[in-house]
Amino acid sequence: MLKVIAQDFIQPEAVEIVLPFYRELVELTRQEPLCIAYDLFIDQKDPGHFIFIETWPDRAALDIHCATEHFTRLVPLINAHQRQDGTFILMDEFSG
Amino acid sequence: MLKVIAQDFIQPEAVEIVLPFYRELVELTRQEPLCIAYDLFIDQKDPGHFIFIETWPDRAALDIHCATEHFTRLVPLINAHQRQDGTFILMDEFSG
Repeated sequence: MLKVIAQDFIQPEAVEIVLPFYRELVELTRQEPLCIAYDLFIDQKDPGHFIFIETWPDRAALDIHCATEHFTRLVPLINAHQRQDGTFILMDEFSG
Repeated sequence: MLKVIAQDFIQPEAVEIVLPFYRELVELTRQEPLCIAYDLFIDQKDPGHFIFIETWPDRAALDIHCATEHFTRLVPLINAHQRQDGTFILMDEFSG
């Protein structure tokens, strides 16, 4: 099981523009057969800070996601309004 | 519903020391009556980078968690081995 946190930082004046792109990205990604969870959150202190929390069976499934039509079409439309580069963390579950 | 990402950065040589503290913190926090989810992950690229993904009903529940015996006892034991300050993000669900 692969857990991912992906963070985007959008220009304040462009937040309204990117909302429909995020909405479509979430909706279509959740329809991917390998998607376990794909949830989007907004920082309470920063309305331009968008945070995805994602669950995939493995890295191959994430790579398939990143090559989908919806990802390759929508992510550049979102990134055109970035104020800084996005970040992502690939994580393993803590086993103690 | 309140989602939280809390990140700790532990000195590489102290990772083995903090593991039992994290194990106990996860176990006891999950027993809190208001805890919806409390999951711990480790950055695949950095074994000293620990990431909690938490779900609470509201901010009041998070404040109660931060005042528990296990939190106030274990977090300082973990933080004694930090290499930099931890971070946390309080988030709302994206509603589109």
